[in-house]
This record gives sequence, structure tokens and C-alpha cells, in this order.
Amino acid sequence: MTENAGKRGGSERGDARMRVDLNSDMGEGFGRWPLGDDGALLSIVSSANIACGFHAGDPSVMLSTLTMAARRGVSVGAHVSYRDLAGFGRRFMDVASDDLTADVAYQLSAIRGMARIAGTSVGYVKPHGALYNRIAADPVQAEAVVNALVRVDPGMALVTLPGSVVGDIAAKAGIRVIREAFADRAYTPQGALVSRRVPGAVITDVDQVAARVSRMVREGVVTADDGGDISIQADSVCVHGDSPGAVAMARAIRDRLVADGIDIVPFVDVASGGDRV
Amino acid sequence: MTENAGKRGGSERGDARMRVDLNSDMGEGFGRWPLGDDGALLSIVSSANIACGFHAGDPSVMLSTLTMAARRGVSVGAHVSYRDLAGFGRRFMDVASDDLTADVAYQLSAIRGMARIAGTSVGYVKPHGALYNRIAADPVQAEAVVNALVRVDPGMALVTLPGSVVGDIAAKAGIRVIREAFADRAYTPQGALVSRRVPGAVITDVDQVAARVSRMVREGVVTADDGGDISIQADSVCVHGDSPGAVAMARAIRDRLVADGIDIVPFVDVASGGDRV
Amino acid sequence: MTENAGKRGGSERGDARMRVDLNSDMGEGFGRWPLGDDGALLSIVSSANIACGFHAGDPSVMLSTLTMAARRGVSVGAHVSYRDLAGFGRRFMDVASDDLTADVAYQLSAIRGMARIAGTSVGYVKPHGALYNRIAADPVQAEAVVNALVRVDPGMALVTLPGSVVGDIAAKAGIRVIREAFADRAYTPQGALVSRRVPGAVITDVDQVAARVSRMVREGVVTADDGGDISIQADSVCVHGDSPGAVAMARAIRDRLVADGIDIVPFVDVASGGDRV
Amino acid sequence: MTENAGKRGGSERGDARMRVDLNSDMGEGFGRWPLGDDGALLSIVSSANIACGFHAGDPSVMLSTLTMAARRGVSVGAHVSYRDLAGFGRRFMDVASDDLTADVAYQLSAIRGMARIAGTSVGYVKPHGALYNRIAADPVQAEAVVNALVRVDPGMALVTLPGSVVGDIAAKAGIRVIREAFADRAYTPQGALVSRRVPGAVITDVDQVAARVSRMVREGVVTADDGGDISIQADSVCVHGDSPGAVAMARAIRDRLVADGIDIVPFVDVASGGDRV
Repeated sequence: MTENAGKRGGSERGDARMRVDLNSDMGEGFGRWPLGDDGALLSIVSSANIACGFHAGDPSVMLSTLTMAARRGVSVGAHVSYRDLAGFGRRFMDVASDDLTADVAYQLSAIRGMARIAGTSVGYVKPHGALYNRIAADPVQAEAVVNALVRVDPGMALVTLPGSVVGDIAAKAGIRVIREAFADRAYTPQGALVSRRVPGAVITDVDQVAARVSRMVREGVVTADDGGDISIQADSVCVHGDSPGAVAMARAIRDRLVADGIDIVPFVDVASGGDRV
Repeated sequence: MTENAGKRGGSERGDARMRVDLNSDMGEGFGRWPLGDDGALLSIVSSANIACGFHAGDPSVMLSTLTMAARRGVSVGAHVSYRDLAGFGRRFMDVASDDLTADVAYQLSAIRGMARIAGTSVGYVKPHGALYNRIAADPVQAEAVVNALVRVDPGMALVTLPGSVVGDIAAKAGIRVIREAFADRAYTPQGALVSRRVPGAVITDVDQVAARVSRMVREGVVTADDGGDISIQADSVCVHGDSPGAVAMARAIRDRLVADGIDIVPFVDVASGGDRV
Repeated sequence: MTENAGKRGGSERGDARMRVDLNSDMGEGFGRWPLGDDGALLSIVSSANIACGFHAGDPSVMLSTLTMAARRGVSVGAHVSYRDLAGFGRRFMDVASDDLTADVAYQLSAIRGMARIAGTSVGYVKPHGALYNRIAADPVQAEAVVNALVRVDPGMALVTLPGSVVGDIAAKAGIRVIREAFADRAYTPQGALVSRRVPGAVITDVDQVAARVSRMVREGVVTADDGGDISIQADSVCVHGDSPGAVAMARAIRDRLVADGIDIVPFVDVASGGDRV
Repeated sequence: MTENAGKRGGSERGDARMRVDLNSDMGEGFGRWPLGDDGALLSIVSSANIACGFHAGDPSVMLSTLTMAARRGVSVGAHVSYRDLAGFGRRFMDVASDDLTADVAYQLSAIRGMARIAGTSVGYVKPHGALYNRIAADPVQAEAVVNALVRVDPGMALVTLPGSVVGDIAAKAGIRVIREAFADRAYTPQGALVSRRVPGAVITDVDQVAARVSRMVREGVVTADDGGDISIQADSVCVHGDSPGAVAMARAIRDRLVADGIDIVPFVDVASGGDRV
């Protein structure tokens, strides 16, 4: 897996600037239904995870979001999902491997073509919702997703949790793996996310969240839910934008990072150092 | 528009062989529901119009059909449609131009990526069902479809009725236009298709249909429903395969053409002669 | 067609109070996507047009909206649509008559069962979007929709434009027809809606709209776009609620009506007087 | 749970005739795609499990299948499913309880209304595919499904595996539970179905299958895959009809039962004996 890529990789090349990528989900409207403030988010993040039509994002929404991202110079990734509009891709589905590979390959193909039309290109894949969580642990579905990436374009990176099963499988297949941290989520002493069912799992204080993200980047540590510090390796930090409060928090995170001398840079623009496992 | 391309273009270059393209719709299953005998058709036709997921064809069906076509050396095209699984793309929909362009671009992007995975490439676009008929006469939706082609790849040809509105718009945009005839349909003295609501609109006698297609290719004429001969310019002839009888008819057409010394060749392999209007 | 029912029918029975029904579309969220402020609208209108799943409204949304309406004592109607989630039912679709009857009957059946669970019942049908407009003029699709009503329950009323084709067909079939006016739309001297493409078609001044609605009820007239007054027969007035401004306007309309001594009463609670045409 | 109801209940009332119900899935076409030979099956089975639109069965298919069943005097049940057309309801989905209850209630409401139009009524519910299997063991989803039944109409029976979790929950809620056996499936010595992944799980010999079903009804036993006889309590036996061979087998089963003096009677027409657990 990438070592320090995108986080402090700059200093390895004698560059004193620290940097990190901020990513957010976008293009999640569908037909009559808008979702989130993509215009605002595009002035905050460096990477846009764009829905591919299976959990959200009809072709018109996809094309306009890709076009906005291209104009703002924001890196774009494919936010692939189970086929489940009614459930917004948040429900685990027991999809057969060949079908899952085909479903993901279809979505990747579609967004890559649409991105070219919009004047940009798809640099990475971030699975969405239930698929994201499932393949962090399930080797069968993880393999199916990685197969899609390999067949469509192994040059695309994969965004996943540090230590995930899909990360290992992707790295072995020669895929660049981007380790993701979550700005507003509490961590266990072992570095796992605290379950959303546990009180305190989601941190809502804007200043606290901004300070945590800044510390993740500057020091590579975060305070776990037992009060102790743990090491965290984040190539990209996920922020949300599907509510007014979320956009305000995302902006506060960005402002804090900039104030602390950290550059917000798409990870796809940062060399991976060739240290793939 | 192409002049004689694919039909008797060979003889123009001193080649005594006559040739024509046969095309058929394929990959029109969806999930649990199969449709047609694609395996049989792939041994008959030279061009396969493959569903892109909007009227039929889920990603698994699409990928397996493209893979079969690639193995058999059959040329593949994108069978794009209105978004209407329940109506199989056979119902006119009043889709706004920008949405239609995006919908078609999405489908084209998806199938092009899937074709690359399958070891082939998409040479042409044949709109399906209600969309095919609508853009033969409606300049607004025709323009929207042509815009999608131009933006995705103007190197793809467009299959349409001779004299259609979309053919004119596409030709002006620099798209190669392929004129299509229908093997089993009756024609009016003016060269239009006899409406399906008129008795005799669909010819069911296998030998008669085979003889008509052969004559279209050899002589460039077909007998209209008033008994007189009319000129018909067909770069490709559409045959059906969604019933056992249909496959038998398609095979009879092929056999007759071969017996009459006509080669079945994908039109995409035949130079268009640079005579685009 | 009903004569004065719901508008001034009260005075016909010696009751000095004037009354009108206000209706609004509700339950138009879908999965992750909310739409409109149904909670606010339910304190304003007397009739709720509830989406049935074909243009919006998944079963959970439908059930919770019906339950809210039941608790607030708001009358509920079936907001049936073409099957087009991606287009929100706003695109005309060329659906065959039998299919349209079955599609509408399915939606009616579903919402009637859900309403019973929620402790209420479906008193009327208001077709949505493109279907509403189409059957105002197209006798074939109008007949198909009326057939569905007749087969499911001819006791449900139909909400439509005054003078519409579907209104005539429904009345002949013994269906109670409710004539609908639009609070914020301009009218021609002939009493038709001014096309949305014409500037001024939608009136945005809140006070002006409220005054127009009050005058419709009190005097049975509205000022047309040429400045002259025309007669308008409205059993129910449609208000919108899918934006903050829309809810504020709806509330202003209600407040004005109440201030002018007009009761807001569901038309289903008002006897139709047996004067169906 | 019902004791002997429908199987040998007749003899309990001094009636020498044995009887059993045969059920089969029907109405599983969708739009352009037919599936199975419902016409043939309706002359064979006594109960038709009719798709409700979530895994198969658009409103037109549903209405025509219900109408055919009504004309033939075949009992109808609601074949409810996860919302998954692409996967034909065969993929487990992690649906939240409230959503699952609403989804099932919507389907039940829809088919009950459509059945009334067709001149029949829905006597029972048989969950389809992945949902059927899931709720045999998962109390959370089972509870959600039973809640839908209770809210819509607790007079409908539930068809499930003997000993299933959902059967217990339904019985406690006062729902009549119908125990189902499978004609062509091998059983373990414990009375469970042999997994389809095991060779021999599906028995394909027509005579053998017919003999097994007859013995289930006459003796209440079936030979398990270890060669020993086990007790089996079946109120209804499921036969398939989605292939030509399947219809032939279904007919052979019926013929054998009739030859053995067994009546094929809808279980809904057989008193449950009031012996619900």
C-alpha cells in the first residue's frame, strides 16, 4: 500500500509544504430531486466522487457535475454502487460476482465516457455506501470490484479504508490504493470507525472536527474514543456536503488546513512513490 | 449520404463480388428474462445491435453478448433507447433535448467501455424502437441524438432509414450514415415502409423474403405493394431473431445471399468512399 | 359536471358560509430524496394529492404521508402518473390503452390499501404532470384512465381542468368531476391556462395571488391576461409546496381566504348535489 | 401450526378422499419479456402465486394473470418480493424493517385491488426468492413481513417452510400458516432442503418426483437423501412452470396424484381446523 503518499510525500522530495486531499460525494441528484450543494463543495474539495447512475445521478446530473468539476479543476472519481435507487445504495445486496463485476464495469465505462465529454478524466474509483463497507471485509465482492477496475483501467486508483480487504486485493493487482479517513467520525483505539449506532460516533463540533483533520495531516495521529492518540494514515479525507451544516463544516476544515499551512491537492496529482505493495 | 457504399461499392473498385451487411438486435435479455437466440444470430449476421441497458440489456447480458460477438468476428453497434424498461423502448417519450443527449451519451459511453473489455469496439449507433422512428421525422430529438454521437465519437456511423431527418442532420455533422432496409417489411411505391397496421405489412413467406433481399442487393430494387419495382438503397438489411421462426428466416436470407454470390460483410469494414454529404 | 359544488354550494342549502377546497401535491420524496414540506402543507390545504410510486413516492414515503394526512384530517387523493421516475412523470409517454388502465389501476389499488392502513381512505384521483395535461385533450388516454377509476371504484372523484376531455368522459361514466383552478397561473380570456413559455404565465406576487383566489371563490371570476374578468368555476384550487416560497404563498392564500370569511373544506366532504352532467 | 389441514383433513371429517394443494409461481413476465407457461400451469395447479411488480409482473401482466386464474377457478396468492427487477428478487437485500413492511404492504395492497378487478381475491401470501429464504431464519425481516400482513389483512394465510421463523411469528400473530413442500427437491434426514450446490439437490426424474409427491400426501413421508424415510407435513406442494420440462413435470405430478385418488384442492378452501399454534 502507498506509504505517506499524498500526506507527507512532499517532504520526501525536499518540499516543505504539507498537503492532503479532501474528497466529497457529488452528483447525487436524480431527475426532479436535487441533493447537496455541489457548487459550494467544488470550491472546497480537491476530489469529487461522482455518482454513476446506480444509487443516484442520472446522465444529465452526471454530465453537468462532471462539467462543473472540470471547470473548477477538481479531480473526479467514479462513485460506483449496487443497483439500488430506492435504497440509495445503502443496503447490502447479495450480488453474484460476475454480475457485480459487470455492474461496476458498466458504471465505470459510462462515467469515463461522460468525463471525456466534459473535458476531464476519471482518476479513481470510490465505491459507495453499502458496497464500500462490504468490500472492506468481504473478499468475494472485493475481488469482483477489483476485477472491474483491472479490466476497465488498472491506472485508476481505489479509495478505501486503511487495512481493508479490498485494499489488499487491489494492491496485489497493481492498483494504487488511497487510504481514506473520515473528518467527522470517531475512531476506536484500534483505528476502526466507531459504529454509527454508538453515541458520539459522529462528531458535530465544527472546530473540533477541523482541528482533528489538521492534526491527522500534520502529525499523522488522531485522538481515539478512549482519549488516547493513535496513528492514522490518510491520503484523502472525506467531508460531506448534503446539508447546509455539512457544507459549513467542510469549509471550516478547508480553512483550518490552509491556515495551518497545508495544501489541498488532489491525490491523483501526487506521485504514489511507486511503493505499491 | 453514402452512395452505394457496402452494396455494390465493391464493383466500383473493380471487385466483382457483391456484398451487403445483415444486422440484428441482440443482447435484449434482462436479468432473469432471456430474449432471442443470440448464439444462432451471431452465425448469420455481420452486425449486432446491442442493447445498452435503457430498454433491455443489463450489464452482464451486455458483456456476454459483446464477448460472443467479438469471438465470432461480428461487428457491434450501440442500440440506444429511451429509458423505458417496462415499455421495452417502444413508447414515444417527450424527453427534453439536453436530457436525451445525456441519456444517449451515457449509453454510448457504457457500451464502448464494455466493448473494449470484451475485445471489440463499437462501430455504429442504431437507435431502438420508438426513438428510431421518432428521429426519422422529429428534428429536435434527432439533433439531440446526433449531438450525443458527435460528442462521444463522430467516427461512429449512424444506422437509419433512407431519407430520414436524423440521417440528414447526422450527415451534415460529418457522421457516416448507413441506410437500412427491412427484410420482411412491405414497401410503398414511394419507398416508405407500409404501416404495421395494414394487412400484408409484414411478409412471412421465408422464400419470398430471401428473394426480395437478394434482389435488393443484386439489382437495387424491391417490389412495392402495388406490384411495381422501386429503387432501394440499402447499406444494411435488418433481420429479426426474437422467435424460432425469425432465426430460421434470417438463416434462409443469409443462405440465399451466399448462393447468389453475395458476401455478408459488416458495413463498418467497407470504405464509405468519402462521399458524405 | 358539478355545478357550484364545494364553492358556493353551501348557500344553496341556506348556509351563508362560502367555502373552497385547497389541494397540493405531497409525498413526492423517493428514498434518500425528500421533496417539499409536507408537514407545513398539511396545516394549509384540505386535500392532499399523494404520489403512488410511479413518478415519486416510495412505499415508506407514501405510508408516512398518508398517516400524517389522516392525523391532520386532510382528505387524500391518488396522484397517479406515467411510470417515469427519471422524468418525474412530466414527460408524455405513448402508453397503450390497456397498459395505461392497468398502470393506473395498480397505483389506485396500492394507495387505497396503504390509506386503509393509515386510517384514511382515498376520496379522489388527480392525475399527475404529463398525464394530467394529456388526458385533458386526448380521448384515448382519457378513456384508459377513466376505465381504471370505474373498475377500481367509481365512487372516487376525478380532479381535472374545467372543460377537459377526461372530465366529459368521466362524467358520462358516472364519476364525480371536480373542476380545478390554479392559484398562481395566468388565464386567457377564453379561460385556458397561459402557457408556461409565455412571460407572466406564473404569477409570483403573493398578495396578488391570494387576492385572485379569494375573488375566484367569492365572485366566481378571475382577471384574464388581457385585463378583463372571466368566469371561473373552481371546486378546488391547487397550491404548490415544493419550495420555501411556495409554502409561504400557500399559507398567504389560506390566510386571505379565512380573513375573507371563506371556509377551507375538502371537496369530498361537500355533497355534489347530484348534478353530474 | 395447522395439523394435517389440507392434506388428510378430509378424513378427519369422515371424508375418505385425500387432498393436497399444488402451487406455482405465475405472472412473472415483465413488459416485453414473457416467462413460463401460465396458461398450461393454470390447468394443473390449485393455487397461483402471482408476482406483484417488485421482482416481476408489471400491472398488465398482473391483471391478465389474475383474470385467467379467476376464470379457471384457481386460488391466487401474493408473491411479494424485495424491490429488485434486475435480480428477479433472488438477491438478499438488507432492507430496514419499516421499509420492508411498507414495501410488502404496498405490493399486497396493489395485488388485492387488482384481484378484485379481476373478479377474485387474494387468499394468501407467499414471499418470493431471497425474501422467502431470508425470513425462514431472520426474525427481524420476518417480523417486518408479518407486520405487513397483519396491517393489510390478517385473514390472508402465509405460505412458508415447515418450522420456519416467519411461520412461528405469523402463527403467534394469528395468521394461518401453510406448510410448503417442494416436489423436486431432495431432503436431508432432518427434513431440511438439500442445498442446491449439492449434486442431487434437484430431482429431475419425472416419475420419481411424481411418486414422491404422491407418497408425501398419502403417507406423510418422503425418502431423505440418506435413503431413510422422514415425516413431512405439507399443506401445499410447490411445482415449477418456467420451462417446457417443468410444465411436463407439473402435469405428471397432478396426473399421478389424481390416479392415486388424491384431490387437488386450494388450501384456502380447506378449513384450517382452528389448530393454529
